[in-house]
Order: sequence, then structure tokens, then C-alpha cells
Amino acid sequence: MDSLGWVAVASIISSGLCIGIGAIGPALGEGRALAQALQAMAQQPDETNTITRTLFVGLAMVESTAIYAFVVSMILIFANPFWNHFLEQAGGG
Amino acid sequence: MDSLGWVAVASIISSGLCIGIGAIGPALGEGRALAQALQAMAQQPDETNTITRTLFVGLAMVESTAIYAFVVSMILIFANPFWNHFLEQAGGG
Amino acid sequence: MDSLGWVAVASIISSGLCIGIGAIGPALGEGRALAQALQAMAQQPDETNTITRTLFVGLAMVESTAIYAFVVSMILIFANPFWNHFLEQAGGG
Amino acid sequence: MDSLGWVAVASIISSGLCIGIGAIGPALGEGRALAQALQAMAQQPDETNTITRTLFVGLAMVESTAIYAFVVSMILIFANPFWNHFLEQAGGG
Amino acid sequence: MDSLGWVAVASIISSGLCIGIGAIGPALGEGRALAQALQAMAQQPDETNTITRTLFVGLAMVESTAIYAFVVSMILIFANPFWNHFLEQAGGG
Amino acid sequence: MDSLGWVAVASIISSGLCIGIGAIGPALGEGRALAQALQAMAQQPDETNTITRTLFVGLAMVESTAIYAFVVSMILIFANPFWNHFLEQAGGG
Amino acid sequence: MDSLGWVAVASIISSGLCIGIGAIGPALGEGRALAQALQAMAQQPDETNTITRTLFVGLAMVESTAIYAFVVSMILIFANPFWNHFLEQAGGG
Amino acid sequence: MDSLGWVAVASIISSGLCIGIGAIGPALGEGRALAQALQAMAQQPDETNTITRTLFVGLAMVESTAIYAFVVSMILIFANPFWNHFLEQAGGG
Amino acid sequence: MDSLGWVAVASIISSGLCIGIGAIGPALGEGRALAQALQAMAQQPDETNTITRTLFVGLAMVESTAIYAFVVSMILIFANPFWNHFLEQAGGG
Amino acid sequence: MDSLGWVAVASIISSGLCIGIGAIGPALGEGRALAQALQAMAQQPDETNTITRTLFVGLAMVESTAIYAFVVSMILIFANPFWNHFLEQAGGG
Amino acid sequence: MDSLGWVAVASIISSGLCIGIGAIGPALGEGRALAQALQAMAQQPDETNTITRTLFVGLAMVESTAIYAFVVSMILIFANPFWNHFLEQAGGG
Amino acid sequence: MDSLGWVAVASIISSGLCIGIGAIGPALGEGRALAQALQAMAQQPDETNTITRTLFVGLAMVESTAIYAFVVSMILIFANPFWNHFLEQAGGG
Amino acid sequence: MDSLGWVAVASIISSGLCIGIGAIGPALGEGRALAQALQAMAQQPDETNTITRTLFVGLAMVESTAIYAFVVSMILIFANPFWNHFLEQAGGG
Amino acid sequence: MDSLGWVAVASIISSGLCIGIGAIGPALGEGRALAQALQAMAQQPDETNTITRTLFVGLAMVESTAIYAFVVSMILIFANPFWNHFLEQAGGG
Repeated sequence: MDSLGWVAVASIISSGLCIGIGAIGPALGEGRALAQALQAMAQQPDETNTITRTLFVGLAMVESTAIYAFVVSMILIFANPFWNHFLEQAGGG
Repeated sequence: MDSLGWVAVASIISSGLCIGIGAIGPALGEGRALAQALQAMAQQPDETNTITRTLFVGLAMVESTAIYAFVVSMILIFANPFWNHFLEQAGGG
Repeated sequence: MDSLGWVAVASIISSGLCIGIGAIGPALGEGRALAQALQAMAQQPDETNTITRTLFVGLAMVESTAIYAFVVSMILIFANPFWNHFLEQAGGG
Repeated sequence: MDSLGWVAVASIISSGLCIGIGAIGPALGEGRALAQALQAMAQQPDETNTITRTLFVGLAMVESTAIYAFVVSMILIFANPFWNHFLEQAGGG
Repeated sequence: MDSLGWVAVASIISSGLCIGIGAIGPALGEGRALAQALQAMAQQPDETNTITRTLFVGLAMVESTAIYAFVVSMILIFANPFWNHFLEQAGGG
Repeated sequence: MDSLGWVAVASIISSGLCIGIGAIGPALGEGRALAQALQAMAQQPDETNTITRTLFVGLAMVESTAIYAFVVSMILIFANPFWNHFLEQAGGG
Repeated sequence: MDSLGWVAVASIISSGLCIGIGAIGPALGEGRALAQALQAMAQQPDETNTITRTLFVGLAMVESTAIYAFVVSMILIFANPFWNHFLEQAGGG
Repeated sequence: MDSLGWVAVASIISSGLCIGIGAIGPALGEGRALAQALQAMAQQPDETNTITRTLFVGLAMVESTAIYAFVVSMILIFANPFWNHFLEQAGGG
Repeated sequence: MDSLGWVAVASIISSGLCIGIGAIGPALGEGRALAQALQAMAQQPDETNTITRTLFVGLAMVESTAIYAFVVSMILIFANPFWNHFLEQAGGG
Repeated sequence: MDSLGWVAVASIISSGLCIGIGAIGPALGEGRALAQALQAMAQQPDETNTITRTLFVGLAMVESTAIYAFVVSMILIFANPFWNHFLEQAGGG
Repeated sequence: MDSLGWVAVASIISSGLCIGIGAIGPALGEGRALAQALQAMAQQPDETNTITRTLFVGLAMVESTAIYAFVVSMILIFANPFWNHFLEQAGGG
Repeated sequence: MDSLGWVAVASIISSGLCIGIGAIGPALGEGRALAQALQAMAQQPDETNTITRTLFVGLAMVESTAIYAFVVSMILIFANPFWNHFLEQAGGG
Repeated sequence: MDSLGWVAVASIISSGLCIGIGAIGPALGEGRALAQALQAMAQQPDETNTITRTLFVGLAMVESTAIYAFVVSMILIFANPFWNHFLEQAGGG
Repeated sequence: MDSLGWVAVASIISSGLCIGIGAIGPALGEGRALAQALQAMAQQPDETNTITRTLFVGLAMVESTAIYAFVVSMILIFANPFWNHFLEQAGGG
């Protein structure tokens, strides 16, 4: 198997593990924040608006770490500079 | 075994592990949020509507991390650019 | 062993691990939500209907992550595009 | 050893691990829900019927993830399409 | 070593690990439910009958996941279709 | 080393790990139930008889998962069908 | 190294790990039960006899899982049927 | 495969794992801080402004560790000095 | 290296790991029981005698699992039947 | 592959893991401190200034451990003395 | 490398890991017991003598598991029967 | 690859892991201490000065363990005696 | 590489891991005991002397397990009987 | 690569891991003790002097386990007897 093949195999494995592992933390963190938000609403119904607003801005921030992992995963599959190089090299060989 | 075979093997292993591992976090996070929501409802029945609405919007956000992993898994199986390349190469060889 | 064999072996291992690992998170998450639901019912019997309804909609959402893993497992066994390719290739060889 | 042998070995290992690992989550989740149900009954004896009904519907849902793993395990042992293919190939060779 | 030997080795390892790992979850889950049941009895002696009945039906459900693992273990040792195939092949060779 | 030797080695390793790992869960589960039983007795001395009876029936159920692992361990050492096959084959060769 | 040597090596490793790992669970479980028993005695001195009796019967049950592991360890060292077979074979060769 | 290929493979694997693992900590930490912020708001509604301001400055600080990992990931993919060296060397060879 | 050497190496590794791992559980279990005993004494000084007696009988039981591991360790070093066999064989050869 | 290539591969892997693993601890530690700070503010609004000041000085100290890992990561990529040595050697060879 | 060398290497690795791993459990267990003892003293100053006496007898018992690991470590380094055998064999050869 | 190369590779990997792993503990420990300090300030505002002073002296002590790891990391990269030796040897050869 | 080299490599790795792993338990145990001692002092200032005395005697006991690991580490580096043997053998050869 | 090189590689890896792993425990232990000290000060301001004194003596004791690991790390890098031996041997050869 030549370099092109190894790069493909590495990209596939790496992108799968990257989002697979990277989805654990954000999901747990968001679940925890969401749970506490609902608890806070039940405790202080008058503050529902403030809590909801802070919750969703905060969730977006936590989600950002999941999006970092997703972006790297997508780059490795669809915009992989290493793959493009070897592809050009193989095409022009 | 040629590159085509290795890419297939890597895609299969990676897509399986990706969703297998990636399902743990969201499920636990959603379970926790759901549990707290029910607790909050029992504590403050009057806020059921607000809690339910926030819960399902939030769950959708947590679910999104599971969907990232699922999307990568599906791409690796059905729209794998590396596989397509080697397939064309093998077909046109 | 040729590519066909390796693809079969990889699919078998991957589908088994995928649902094996992927069943842990949803089961724990659902168990937690269910436990809290029963606790909430005992605490606020009048809200049983609301709690039950929210519980089952929520459980379905948690279950969805288990179903993602199950679907990938089934695809890898019964609708594996890599296997189909090598099978055609082998059949037409 | 030919492909037939490797597919058999992979199926045996994978089916064993699949249900072995997949039994952990559901058992813990069901144990937790059951424990809380009994606690809820002791706290609110009048709601025993509602609690019991919700408990068993919920347990069935948790059990479903164990059944997914069990089904994949059984398919890998008794209805393995990869094994069947190589068996026909070997039989007709 | 031929295929027959490898299938035997794989079956032995897999069946041992399957029940070895698969016994952890159910035992912990049952232990937790049992502990809570005794606590509930001490708290609400009048409900002993209901608690005991629910406990044992529930324990049977938790036990079922251990039994799945045990069944797969037994099948791999005593009713292994892969072993039977290679045995016939070897016997009729 | 021939098949007979490998089967022996696999059986020895597998039976040791099977009961070694399989003893963890039941012991922890039983320890927890026992601890709670003693706590319950101290809290409600009048219910000692009921608690003790439920405890020992429950412990037997938890113990059953340890016994599954022990049975598989014993089968792998003393009634191993794979070993018996290769032994006959070797003896009759 | 012939089969006899490999069986010896496997038996030594397996028996050591079997009791080494298998001692963790029972020791933790017994420690927990014992701790709770002492707590219960301090809380309800009049029930010391009942608590002590139940404690030691229960500890014996927990100990049984350690004994399973110890028995398998001893069998693998002193009454190993696989070793005996190869020993006879070597002795009679 | 030459050095260029190995460097590509290493960069792909390393960048994927770097952000995959590095996303766990920040997501959990942010989730925890967010949860507590909502709790604090429900407890002391008058301090919402101060809490929100401190929360978002603090979240930015936690996010910085995720950004370190993301930056290293991006450098390894798009501005990798090792890759550039070997590329020049290969281009000018 | 002949069988005698491998058996020696395996015995050394196995005995070291056996007691190394096997010392964790009993030490933690005993520490927990001891801690609770001191707590119980402070809570109920009049029961010091009963608590102390039960504590030391119980500790001896927990210690027994450590002793199992120690005994296996000592047997593997000083009374290893596999080593003795190969030693005789080597001596009489 | 020569030394230059191996050093490049090692630097890439090591820098990725270094910041990937090293980001976990600081993020969790900062998240915890931040959460407690918000809790403290809600509890004692008059001390907001002191708490905020101590929080940010403390966060900077926790951040320092993340910066150590980031610095080592950057050194390994951009100021690696081992790489520079082999580069000179290769350039001047 | 001959048997003598391998036995030396195995003894060194095993003795290091044995006490390295074996020191974790006793240290944690003793720390816990000690912590509770101090707590108990502060709660019931009049019982200081009884608590101290029980504490040190108990600590000696916990320490015994660390000593088992230390003894095995020392035996493997200074009184290793396997090493002595190969040494005599090498010396007398 | 000669010794010089292996030493470079080992130093790179080791320095990266050393600070990567070594940053986890101090960050968590400092985060915990900081969190408690803020809690203590909110509880006892009059003691802010004493708490702050003790906090920062203590944090410096915790930081020292991170600095040990950082120092070893830096020594391995910039003042590595093994590298210097082989460098001289290679330079003077 | 001859035996002398392997023994040196094994001693270096083993002594590093021995104290590296062996420092975790005692440090955590001592930290816990120390934390509780300070708590006890704050609760019962009159008992400061007794608490301090018991604390330091106890800490010395916990420290002893760290010292066991340190002693083995030092023996492996500076008084290694296996190294001495091979050194003499090499020197006198 | 000769012995000298392997000893260098082993020393580098071992010293890095030794302090990397060995820094986790002491940092967590010190963080915990520090946290509790601040809590104790807030609770009992009059005892600040005693608490601070005991805290720093205790922290020094916890730090000692980190110093053991650091000392071994430094010895392996700068005063390694194995390296010195091979260096002399190589120099005098």
C-alpha cells in the first residue's frame, strides 16, 4: 500500500475517533447545565427568562468544544491537505 | 490486500467505534437532564410548561453531539471520499 | 485471506463492539430518568400524568442514541456497501 | 487458516464480548430504577399501582438496549450473512 | 494449528470473558435493588408484601441480562455452530 | 505446539480470568445489600425476621451470577468439550 | 518449549491473576458490610446479637466468591487436568 | 512509504486525538460552572448581572484551554513545519 | 531459553502481581471498617468492647482474602509444582 | 526513513498528546473554582469584589499549568532542538 | 540472553511493580482510618485513649497487607529461589 | 537510525507526556483549594486577608509539583545529558 | 545487547515506575488525614495537642508505604544484586 | 544501537513518566488539605495560627512523596550508575 492509502486509512480512523471521543464531554457538560437550569426554574419561577437566556448562551459555549472536534473531523474527511497533496502527486505522476 | 481493502476495513471499524463511543455521553447527559426535569415538575407543578419547553430545546442541543457522531459514521459508510477515490481508480485501472 | 475476508471480519467485530459499548450509556441514562420519575410520582401523585408523558417522550429521545448504534450495527451486518462491492467484484471475477 | 475460519473466530469473539459488555449498562440501570421504585412505594404506599405500572414499562424500555446487544449476538452466531457466504463458497468450491 | 483448533480456542476465551464481564453489572444492580428494598421495609413495614413482590419480579428482570450472557456462554461451549461445521468437515474429510 | 496444547492453555487462562473478574461484581453487590440489611435492622428491630428472610433469598439471587461464572470456569477445566474432542483425536491417532 | 511448558506457564500466570483480581471485590464488600454493622451496633446496642449473627452469616456468603477464585487458583496449581494429561503423555513417551 | 507519508499520517492521527481528548475537560468544566451560575441566579436574583459577567469572563478562561488544543490541531494540519520541510525537500529533490 | 527458564520468569511475574494487586482490596476494605469502628466508638462509648471484638473478628475475615493472595504468591515462589517437575527433569536428564 | 523523519513524527504525536491531555486538568479545575465563585457571590453579594479578584488571580495560577503544557507543545513544533540538529546535519551533509 | 538474564529482568520488573501498586491500597486505607480517628477524637475527647489504641492496632493490620507486598518484593530481590538455582547452575557449569 | 536519533525521539515523547500528565494533578488540586477559599471568604468575610495569604502560599506549594514536571520536561529538551554525550561522540567521531 | 544491558534497562524503568506509581496512594492518604485533622482542630480547639500528636504518628505510618516503594527504588538503582552479579561476571570474564 | 543507547532511552522515558505520574497524587492531596484548612479557618478564626502551622508541616510531609519521585527522576538523569558504567566501559574500550 502506498502513502495515499495510509493517509486515507489514518484520516478515516482519526476522524471517527475524534468526534466519537469528543462528543462525550460536551454532552455530559450540557446535560449537567440543563439539569441545573430546570432545577433553578422550579426554585425561582420568576427568573425563568434570565435563566433561559443565560442557559442557551452558555450551552452554545459548551457546544463550541464539540464543534471544534466536529470541524477537525470534517476537515480530515473533506479538506485534508495531506490527502490533497498525495492525490495531486499521484494524479500528476 | 490493496488500498481499497484497507480503506474499507478502516471505515467499518471507525464508523462502528465512532457511534458506539459517541452514544455514551449524550445518553447519560440526556438522562440526567430528563431526571432533573421530572424532579422539577414534581416540585413546581405550575411551571410544567416552561420546564417541558426548555427541556426539549435543551435535549435537542445535547442530542446534536450524538448526531455529529452519527453523521460522521454515516459519511464514513455511505459517502466516504477516500473510498470513492480508490473505487474510481480501481474501476478505471 | 483476501479483501472479502478482512471486510467480513472487520464488520463482525465492529458491529458487535458498536452495540455492545453503545448500549451502556442509554441504559444508564434511562435507568436514571426512570428512577427519578418514580421518585417524583411518589412526591407529587397529582402530577402523575404529566410526569409519565414527559418521561416516555424523554426516554424515546435517550433511546434514540441506542438506536443510532443499533442502526449502524445492522447496516454493517446486512447492508454493508463495502462488502457488497467486494462481493460483486468477487462474483464477477 | 482460510477466510471461513477467520470469520468463525471473529464471530465467536465478537458475540461473546457484545453481550458481555452490553449486559453491564442495562443491569445497572434497571437496578437503579428498581431500587428507587421500592423507595417510592415505601414513601407513598397509595401510589403503588401507578409506580409499579410505570416501573415495568420503563424497565422494558431499558431492557430493550440489552436486547439489541443480545439480538446482534444471536445474529452473529446463528444468522451471520458473512459466514453463510463463505460457507456457500466453500461448499460449492 | 488448523481452523478447528482456532475456533476452539476462540470459543473458550470468549465464553469465559462473556460471563466473567457480564456478571458484574447484574450483580451490582441486584445488590443495589436488594439494599433499597430492605431499607424500604424498615421504613414502611406495612408494605412488606408489595415491596417483596415487586422486588423479586424486578430482580428477575435484572437477572435476565445475566442470563443472556450465560446463554451465549453456554451456546459457545455446547452448541457452537461454527465448531460443529468444522467438526463435520474434519470428520468427513 | 499442537491444537491440544493451545486448547489447554486457552482453557486455563480463560477459567482463571472468568472467576477472577466474575467475583468482583457479586461480592460488591452482596456487601452492599448486607450493609443495608444491618442498617435496616438497627432502624426497625421488630422487622428483623422479614429483613433476614428477604436478605438471604436476595443474596442467593446475587450469588447466582457468581455461580454462573464459577460453573463456566469449572466446565472449562473439567468438562471442556473442545479438549475432549482433541484428546480423543490425539488418543485415537 | 513444548506443550508441557506452555501449560505450566499459563497455569502460573492464570492462578496468580485469578486470586489477585478476585480478592478485590470480596474484601471491599466485606469491609463495607463490616463498617455498617459497627455503625448499626452503635445506633442500636440492644440488637447487637442479631446484627452480629446476620453479619457473620452474610460475610460467609460474600467470602464464598473469594473462595471460588481461591479454589480455581488451587485447582490450576495442584489438580490441573491439562497438566496431568501432558505429564502422563511426557512420562509415557 | 517515505518520510513525507509518515509525517502526514502522524499529523492526521495526532490532530484528531488532540482536539478529541482536549474537548472533554473544557466541556465538563464549563458545564459545571454554567450549572452553578444558574443555581446562583435562582438563589440570588438581584446579583444576576454580576454573576453573568463573572460567568462569561470565567468561561472564556476555561475555553482558552480548549482553544490551545484546537490551535495545536490546526497548526498540525495547516501550518505543520515538519510537513513543509519534507514537502520542500521532496519538491526540490 | 528452555521451559525451566520460562516457568521461573512466569512465577516471578505472577507472584509479584498477585500480591501487588491483591493487597489493594483488603487494605481499602479494612481501612473503611476501621474508620467506621472509630466513628461508632465516639458515638456510643459504652459499646466499645462489643465494637472492638466485632471489628477484629471482621478484620480477620477481610484479611483472609489478602492471605489467599499471599499464600498463592508464596506457593508460586517456594512450592511451585511446575518448577519442581522441570527441575527434576533437568536434574535427572 | 531516516532520523529526521522519526524526530518529526515523534514531535507531532507528542505535541498533540501533550496539550490534548494537559488541557483536561486545568479546564476541570478552573470550572470548579468558577462554579464555587458564583455560588459564593450569590451567598455573600457584598464580597463580590474580593471574590472576583481572588478568583482571577487564582485562575491565572491554574491556567499556568495549562500554559506549561502549551509551551512544551509549541517548543516541540517550532523550536525543537533535536529537529534543528538533524536539519543542520542533513542540510550540511 | 540466557535464562539467568531473563530471571534477573523479570525479578526487577516484578519487585518494582509489586510494591509500587501494592502501596496504593494500604496508604489510602490508613489515611481514611486516620482521618476518621481524628474526627472521632474531636467529637468525643473523653474516648481519646480507646480510639488511639484501636486505631494503631487497626493500622498495623492494614499495614500488614503493605508488608506482604514488601516481603514478596524483598524475596524477589534478595532471596529469589529461581535466581539461586540458575546461579548455581551457571557457577557449576 | 543510530543512538542519537533514538535519544531524540525518546526525549521528545517523554517531555511531552511528562508535562501533559503532570499538569492534571496540580490543576485539579489548585482548582479545589481555590474553590474552597472563595467559599470560605463568603462565609467569613472578616478573615479574607488570612485566607488569601494562606491560599497563595499553599497554591505555590501545589504548583511546585507541576514545576517539578515542567523542569524535568525542560531538562529533557534543552539540557539532556544523554543527548549531549551522543552529540559530542557524533561530532568528534 | 547482552544481559548486563537488559538488567540496567529493566532496573531504570522499574525504579522509575515503582516510586512514580507508589507516590500516588500515600500522598492522597496523607492529604485526606491532614484535611480531617485541620477540620477536627477547628471543631474542637481544646484537643489540638492530642490531634496533632496522633496525626503525625499516623502520617508516619502512611508515609511508611511510600518509603517501602522508595527503598525498593533505591535498591534497584544503587544496590541491585542482579546488576552486581552480571557486573562481576563481565569484569572477571 | 548498543547498550549505552538503550540505557539512555530507558532513563529518559522512565524519568519523564516517574515525575509525570508521581506529581498527580501529591498535588491532589495537598489541594485537598489546603482546601480544608481554609474552610477550618473560616469556621474557627481564633485557631488560625495552629491550623496554619499544622498545615505547612503536613504539606511538607505530603510534598515529601513528590520529592521522592523528583529525586529518582534527577538520579536517573544526572547520577545514573548504569549510564556511568557503560560510559566508562565505552570510553575505556
